[in-house]
Amino acid sequence: MEPTNLEEAFGAFEETWSPRVVAELNGQEVKVARLEGEFVWHSHAEADELFYVLDGDLTIEFRDEADAHLSAGDLLVVPAGVEHKPVAEEEVKAMLFEPAETLNTGDADDADLTVEEPERLD
Amino acid sequence: MEPTNLEEAFGAFEETWSPRVVAELNGQEVKVARLEGEFVWHSHAEADELFYVLDGDLTIEFRDEADAHLSAGDLLVVPAGVEHKPVAEEEVKAMLFEPAETLNTGDADDADLTVEEPERLD
Repeated sequence: MEPTNLEEAFGAFEETWSPRVVAELNGQEVKVARLEGEFVWHSHAEADELFYVLDGDLTIEFRDEADAHLSAGDLLVVPAGVEHKPVAEEEVKAMLFEPAETLNTGDADDADLTVEEPERLD
Repeated sequence: MEPTNLEEAFGAFEETWSPRVVAELNGQEVKVARLEGEFVWHSHAEADELFYVLDGDLTIEFRDEADAHLSAGDLLVVPAGVEHKPVAEEEVKAMLFEPAETLNTGDADDADLTVEEPERLD
């Protein structure tokens, strides 16, 4: 029963768009990620995905509706099946909640960005 | 696709030990809660429960092992079935992540503290 500190978790990696798992519960995972630049358009067929911004300003673009703008303390759920593209002009630190096994790139076919087995920091 | 701001969510209530739902996804809920004083000993038979401290210092007591001490930025998962008692000398703002329908008092028989249907702020 040792708490995990998120600042320490962020201290363990520098890569962007490469989530780390900090907790697992009820078949879901809590991840932390550094986001900077434009990610790929993608969706997760079966998984709702929560973004919670810890630091920085994150835009999440959608195909058919207005972009969402998240700053520190803001959270947003992207429903399963909804195509989205995260964009961060400067580095964002974010927490993600989603089902275990959810791929960061969802249905996008981008081998360079896909992280098959995120490192665990829990 | 409107983000929810956690400070605004906390601005919507003052009660302690009375979680509010700020997001729902994949059958799970994200809640925010103000914790102050000693809660009741309880467990959740089927639900792992995540505590993430946003502000303040939270102790989680266990029956058979050392207390966990969480400060801002710390998170801890209390596994299903593990009896625990949250204690906060001064008010703590916390985020909780657990299956929808999880009762705040779990198996404890305490009608005064049980919140059957938490208010939704999402």
